[in-house]
Amino acid sequence: MISLIERLFPITRSITGDGVRETLSIINEHIPLVVHEVPSGTSVLDWTVPPEWNVGEAWIRDSSGRTVVDLVDSNLHLVSYSIPVHTNLPLDELQQHLHSLPDRPDLIPYRTSYYTETWGFCLSHRLRETLADGEYEVFIGSTLEPGSLTYAEHVVAGDSTGEIIVSSHVCHPSLANDNLSGVAVAVALAQRLASNTRGRLTTRFVFAPGTIGTITWLERNRDQIGRIQAGFTLVSLADGAPLTYKRTFDGRSVIDRAAALVLEESDVSHRFLDFYPYGYDERHYNSPGFRLPVGSFMRSVHGQTPEYHTSGDNLDLVDPAQLEEALDVLTRVIEVVDRNLTYVNQAPYGEPQLGKRGLYEAIGGKNIADLQLAMLWVLNLSDGEHDLLAIAERSDLPFDTVAEAADLLAETGLVQESVP
Amino acid sequence: MISLIERLFPITRSITGDGVRETLSIINEHIPLVVHEVPSGTSVLDWTVPPEWNVGEAWIRDSSGRTVVDLVDSNLHLVSYSIPVHTNLPLDELQQHLHSLPDRPDLIPYRTSYYTETWGFCLSHRLRETLADGEYEVFIGSTLEPGSLTYAEHVVAGDSTGEIIVSSHVCHPSLANDNLSGVAVAVALAQRLASNTRGRLTTRFVFAPGTIGTITWLERNRDQIGRIQAGFTLVSLADGAPLTYKRTFDGRSVIDRAAALVLEESDVSHRFLDFYPYGYDERHYNSPGFRLPVGSFMRSVHGQTPEYHTSGDNLDLVDPAQLEEALDVLTRVIEVVDRNLTYVNQAPYGEPQLGKRGLYEAIGGKNIADLQLAMLWVLNLSDGEHDLLAIAERSDLPFDTVAEAADLLAETGLVQESVP
Amino acid sequence: MISLIERLFPITRSITGDGVRETLSIINEHIPLVVHEVPSGTSVLDWTVPPEWNVGEAWIRDSSGRTVVDLVDSNLHLVSYSIPVHTNLPLDELQQHLHSLPDRPDLIPYRTSYYTETWGFCLSHRLRETLADGEYEVFIGSTLEPGSLTYAEHVVAGDSTGEIIVSSHVCHPSLANDNLSGVAVAVALAQRLASNTRGRLTTRFVFAPGTIGTITWLERNRDQIGRIQAGFTLVSLADGAPLTYKRTFDGRSVIDRAAALVLEESDVSHRFLDFYPYGYDERHYNSPGFRLPVGSFMRSVHGQTPEYHTSGDNLDLVDPAQLEEALDVLTRVIEVVDRNLTYVNQAPYGEPQLGKRGLYEAIGGKNIADLQLAMLWVLNLSDGEHDLLAIAERSDLPFDTVAEAADLLAETGLVQESVP
Repeated sequence: MISLIERLFPITRSITGDGVRETLSIINEHIPLVVHEVPSGTSVLDWTVPPEWNVGEAWIRDSSGRTVVDLVDSNLHLVSYSIPVHTNLPLDELQQHLHSLPDRPDLIPYRTSYYTETWGFCLSHRLRETLADGEYEVFIGSTLEPGSLTYAEHVVAGDSTGEIIVSSHVCHPSLANDNLSGVAVAVALAQRLASNTRGRLTTRFVFAPGTIGTITWLERNRDQIGRIQAGFTLVSLADGAPLTYKRTFDGRSVIDRAAALVLEESDVSHRFLDFYPYGYDERHYNSPGFRLPVGSFMRSVHGQTPEYHTSGDNLDLVDPAQLEEALDVLTRVIEVVDRNLTYVNQAPYGEPQLGKRGLYEAIGGKNIADLQLAMLWVLNLSDGEHDLLAIAERSDLPFDTVAEAADLLAETGLVQESVP
Repeated sequence: MISLIERLFPITRSITGDGVRETLSIINEHIPLVVHEVPSGTSVLDWTVPPEWNVGEAWIRDSSGRTVVDLVDSNLHLVSYSIPVHTNLPLDELQQHLHSLPDRPDLIPYRTSYYTETWGFCLSHRLRETLADGEYEVFIGSTLEPGSLTYAEHVVAGDSTGEIIVSSHVCHPSLANDNLSGVAVAVALAQRLASNTRGRLTTRFVFAPGTIGTITWLERNRDQIGRIQAGFTLVSLADGAPLTYKRTFDGRSVIDRAAALVLEESDVSHRFLDFYPYGYDERHYNSPGFRLPVGSFMRSVHGQTPEYHTSGDNLDLVDPAQLEEALDVLTRVIEVVDRNLTYVNQAPYGEPQLGKRGLYEAIGGKNIADLQLAMLWVLNLSDGEHDLLAIAERSDLPFDTVAEAADLLAETGLVQESVP
Repeated sequence: MISLIERLFPITRSITGDGVRETLSIINEHIPLVVHEVPSGTSVLDWTVPPEWNVGEAWIRDSSGRTVVDLVDSNLHLVSYSIPVHTNLPLDELQQHLHSLPDRPDLIPYRTSYYTETWGFCLSHRLRETLADGEYEVFIGSTLEPGSLTYAEHVVAGDSTGEIIVSSHVCHPSLANDNLSGVAVAVALAQRLASNTRGRLTTRFVFAPGTIGTITWLERNRDQIGRIQAGFTLVSLADGAPLTYKRTFDGRSVIDRAAALVLEESDVSHRFLDFYPYGYDERHYNSPGFRLPVGSFMRSVHGQTPEYHTSGDNLDLVDPAQLEEALDVLTRVIEVVDRNLTYVNQAPYGEPQLGKRGLYEAIGGKNIADLQLAMLWVLNLSDGEHDLLAIAERSDLPFDTVAEAADLLAETGLVQESVP
């Protein structure tokens, strides 16, 4: 995951353009992607795919001809989607196009202007304060032309048409935690799922630019979204904060309950956030027209660290152990969602005779083992209204024990999978 | 408010009679009232309007001819609705008609006997203990004759037929906190609402004798009560206790949520009580046949202070600052109820593009302002099931910010008011 | 209760056989029983009534002819349902048929093998460790033959066909707390109910072997169980632990709410357990096909004391005061369930005029008494959706006060019993 992040870090990405394509091309070296191109001007939900933006050189030179800000030094220097400019102007006019952070004077902020035609440069406040009065030459070698928006999908097929969505945004330039960490964990998760036993559910990975990319994906998959049984966005998984799960709008969907159970059964430092309609693409999945059960996994919360959306979000912030821990938890969450069937007890009147089916110890009178207790819970709660997660929650038994009990009971025909 | 209380304080009021009429006449000098007279004997719900009661002189004289108790000194001295009496009787027989408070020997209790024909005097226990054996002359110059029950209404009209009810009882004689304070705050609230911008809802003020007056009002307005969207009774608002809101039977109606939000957003010392079917006229509004969403605002709770229903509830107990604080809170509660619409998101698929409607900052990447966050909350929760109060509660944003966001979104057509 | 327990203690009971019959015969001396015999081989729900088991002698002798284990000393020495055996075998083979408790070396464990044909002896670990190498003679004079399973019922009739079930298992041999205490309390409860005023509900006492007996009862009463409005199993009521109520699957049924109210209104040390599908026969009553509202009363919880299912569960463990306390609570729980009607207010518009019906003090103005407050609560909550338990819970008034208020209101016709 680290090497993928390092390789993707220098690329100048935005919501459209060759930076996204190059990013997806590198991901494709690890997991096969289906790449989609959607022309500028296409209507997508309430939005329109914007012109494609690419940029070559971009710099500011002072009156002595010295380059004081250069895109080559950091792709955060240029406001994303800046229109092409080549002009001379005095410092006071230039200032209106500059962005810096007086409270964090060494950091370059990350700014965008996708839908309002303007231009600007971002720089450290310390550098900004050194700018002398006088004339400046500004050059932005960008193009804003009809082209396309690019996103990609990777599918790990399961036995049913039910789907889990894993969504990560690929539009941010040199910001490591937000969101190359999410991209890298998604790639590693896809690889791990592919190497595991084929699951019941299909897992669909979406790599798309934030907002407009997900909006486009939703527009083009409106007739498929009934398949989605669970999902999450992945973002900012590399820093030192506890693993954080943000709930779906519903708050009690399968993904919410699986995330709670897995994190609580684990010894991973973690916390939960209720849904709020801000943050990342989960806001679109959970919009009132869709209300898809898509939560979000993160560590630090957007906007709440000094490095957020600045040059401080660089490779130094990336902790490999944190990425691995997140990967393990996510793998387990998907396993639990996949395994979370609802059964119906076929002998619901009284407790059935487990002994004659070889499911009970011959000698009675002793205390009961967890697996046998789990069988009793599965039998009692398999009334068609409780899935295995609900049984694990109510019994306070480990999910795996409950699932193993269900398997044993299903083998003897005492319970059958509920067909919704 | 203080001067109104002082002017109303000396009047000998009961549930019928000239005391009520004089009280309503003085209120009418401040806000125009429609006064209703309902004849004795009229059936109202499970009750019957009683004979009208009026009283001139009432006193007890000892064997030496000295007046020991006189209605002129305090209109609490006479049990309300005492029948006319002129008789001589020994102390031990007189004792059966006397009421005092051994645990608060300096206070005269307030006692009534509206529906059982009897007579009695109330006096301080200290005075009662000085009564010497011997013959006493008792005179009660009361009349109990066919007449009418009097109540009044004042309306501050709004744009819709939906109504807020503000109800205060006007039957208590010289008791300042219970309930001249409620009457005075109601009058001031009506004046303030009239001076504000016309609201959506009509506010109807009911000034009626306790129980029988409200029962009569409910009987005569049975076909109108479907209009009532919220309401509250007002009582005992002048003392030093925290502002107290007693919930409706439902406990989660608009008035309950508005009262909770306003008090919690304020820095006013306050507390909440769950509904119980005792206290004041809210018990009738919340009876099972009506279940109207009518709460109650008070400070000290009836029956829980030593001054309750005694001569201790006098003008010394009235704190003008407490009346003003209550008035401010009530004004705000009515504003919130009035503003509490439910909207439906007209672009519910994904987050709509706020930028193209001028509702979003052009330069992205920064943290979000409360108003913009409120817009996202309104959009997400405007699924027809959440009113603005629900959005303020779930988002933990100030109600006004949420309402302003809804206004901005409604102006662009992104949300529309839900028509129930 | 103590003398009944002492008399039943020595009998060698199992799930079938003469031990059960003798036990029921002794109970029949105290309360009349209807005894049912169900032939071996009968299908009952998912089970089959097993062959009948009886035993005469059973012992182990060492090579010197000395009897080292003898059923005469404790009927726990023989694994229940051991097949007939007469053989000689070396110690190492014998060991495979022995059961002891290394962590409680002085106690003889209680073991059963009802449905797997085998044999075995239970003994203290201390005794087991003294067994020398060599040949042993083993004799088990048991019979396992077609016969019948025996259970019994006792009914305390009420005015309606609605029923309360009191269920206790009668299969354990010399174990005093589990479950002769439950049997003895059930017998005393039946006697007490018979001596009280006839109730609304019929109380049906079931004395049956654990699991197979209750399974048989359920099979044979499938068309009657709609009558069951509440119930509980009784077990382990003699020890020093707090009185413990284990809730039904539903958790909010009448018996759950009555048990909670009675225990909380009492000064009895107590605790509550949520339902779990293990323990005693409540698991069958609460199985998904039946979901009968049957809780369980106990003191120590099965499997959680060192004496559980060992020779330590003997007469020394029985505390008469604990039995009496349980009996008092159970009597009260049944009274509350029986009294828990739902009423409908016949004058639901406003508070009705209680005074004209003699239900209100003539002189008003004072604080209200609990009984009058209870009348207001009953009137307000008698909307057809609240039973008296719900009114007691919400009002925080004693149940008896609420019930007395309902009686007074019902006498005047202000409320009427709701017909479901």
